[in-house]
Amino acid sequence: MKHLIRGSVLFALLLSLVTGCTQKQQTAKTDLWAFYKNTLTKCKYVDLTHAFTPTIPVWKAFGNAKFLPARSSITIPGYVKKGEIFTYKKQEFRASAYILPTDQYGTQLDPPAHWDSLGATISDLPPTYAVRPLVVIDIHKKVEKDPGYACSVEDIKAWEAKHGRIPEGSVVMVRSDWSKKWPDKKKCDEFPFPGVSLEALKFLHLQRNILFHGHEPLDTDTTATLVGEYWLMHHYYTQAEGVANLDKVPEAGALIAIGFAKPKGGTGGYARYIAICPPDWKYGKTILEEPGAPLPKQPYPLKRDKNGVLRPTP
Amino acid sequence: MKHLIRGSVLFALLLSLVTGCTQKQQTAKTDLWAFYKNTLTKCKYVDLTHAFTPTIPVWKAFGNAKFLPARSSITIPGYVKKGEIFTYKKQEFRASAYILPTDQYGTQLDPPAHWDSLGATISDLPPTYAVRPLVVIDIHKKVEKDPGYACSVEDIKAWEAKHGRIPEGSVVMVRSDWSKKWPDKKKCDEFPFPGVSLEALKFLHLQRNILFHGHEPLDTDTTATLVGEYWLMHHYYTQAEGVANLDKVPEAGALIAIGFAKPKGGTGGYARYIAICPPDWKYGKTILEEPGAPLPKQPYPLKRDKNGVLRPTP
Repeated sequence: MKHLIRGSVLFALLLSLVTGCTQKQQTAKTDLWAFYKNTLTKCKYVDLTHAFTPTIPVWKAFGNAKFLPARSSITIPGYVKKGEIFTYKKQEFRASAYILPTDQYGTQLDPPAHWDSLGATISDLPPTYAVRPLVVIDIHKKVEKDPGYACSVEDIKAWEAKHGRIPEGSVVMVRSDWSKKWPDKKKCDEFPFPGVSLEALKFLHLQRNILFHGHEPLDTDTTATLVGEYWLMHHYYTQAEGVANLDKVPEAGALIAIGFAKPKGGTGGYARYIAICPPDWKYGKTILEEPGAPLPKQPYPLKRDKNGVLRPTP
Repeated sequence: MKHLIRGSVLFALLLSLVTGCTQKQQTAKTDLWAFYKNTLTKCKYVDLTHAFTPTIPVWKAFGNAKFLPARSSITIPGYVKKGEIFTYKKQEFRASAYILPTDQYGTQLDPPAHWDSLGATISDLPPTYAVRPLVVIDIHKKVEKDPGYACSVEDIKAWEAKHGRIPEGSVVMVRSDWSKKWPDKKKCDEFPFPGVSLEALKFLHLQRNILFHGHEPLDTDTTATLVGEYWLMHHYYTQAEGVANLDKVPEAGALIAIGFAKPKGGTGGYARYIAICPPDWKYGKTILEEPGAPLPKQPYPLKRDKNGVLRPTP
């Protein structure tokens, strides 16, 4: 018996070493950093965000943004005059100014304050809006046949039959491929566009307790009173709009990093969403491939185009 | 021998069940979602971001932002007149407009295009700017004695003596507690303020290959020509400024979620940083505590204050 136990212990130790299973020995510190080193560095990162510009599609009653060079608000003798544009040559830097007639612009995160006077604003969103499981419900084939198709409870149940129950607290994005029309204003204005049904939204929030859903168009559905958004906002849920590249991420198994600008009391979110896909996923870049520091140089010096957007210009 | 092996296998199986070590059986899919369920839901989330407003501290030659209600750009008969403010009562929603004279505002992420005509803009940053290890170098006690103290290579080496080598690709934040002056304009204007030395920046990037460093003040150092920022931008590195709550996160072991608005060709980033701290950390909220859906109601209806900021108002 003694020999048997000794053999077992040795074997278990060996197994533990082979599988790298040292969970018990890891401090909490090591857990997160080990996960970064062993997994996150090998994941495939996909940006789900449209960069916003002064010419992107926007609801007709909102105007487009203006992009401008930043100017000095004061005179500093020998350095800059009041109203002068900061330049790489003279002040050795540039900065940008923006006139944004609406916060319902580009890839967004709508907080309930957008529709409800008692709703949370963008700066009220808790820090737990950070990293969540990403679920992608794919309706793009149905939309090919019916451009006004709305994601149904059945579509969600079909996803669950394939992948299991939607994890609580997830972000659920509806892939319609509508975003392939972006940034063509005329195409993006076409009616109808793919939606998400009120029943589907209720199912996701009340039966599955998701964090929020997202869609590619700039509205949730094609009803005259926007019943889906009305229900979401007045029940104190958020939603993502104008999401891109959902055809480049898996239906299940990825995480999503949620980012946005944080103006105090804001009613909309200029957002950036990143999908963190499993290492064996076919699209996206790893941290090894795009470490982010140092960053690649532009092919040509940056100059503002006629719309004020800085672009590398030969 | 046969019995011994059978015993070993049983024992190893038992050990495997007890420690939950099923790494080999997990598909890539399960890895990320299992990590979310088992670890991320239990982590403590801390927001490192100042919400920006029309009255926050800003460099004297830039102006402050203006916050305004969104107005209709057209007349839609029976619904809204051109120039009319959208209201909860009439159109059943609100939106916000912003006039932003600078993108060097509040909690920031500076891309190299801010100083270098060949530098990457904010929309060029790769999707791998998402989740990274968070290292916090604490110099606040030295700053208490010397308000112009700059983080040195020695401070970094002292951190490493305590916690081990800084992980490659990390975000390294310098805690000075300067952010406790925020948003008092007069206090934030005091000179000198705590900095990060050029040697420390070079060490972090060239010897440790970090993603970027961050600091609490709105500038990197107190030199007349801003030598640190000059070196960073012209070597195609980014940096974070105006970071908050570094006294509420551990020196080692947390992750950071990096978020920002994504204007095309932008020279600055309206950023939001979230620290994801180990479950046993003393500050922050878990996803169970602040699930984020549905969100809490405001105590009073939202009204714009004299600066245009929506706030719950009795």
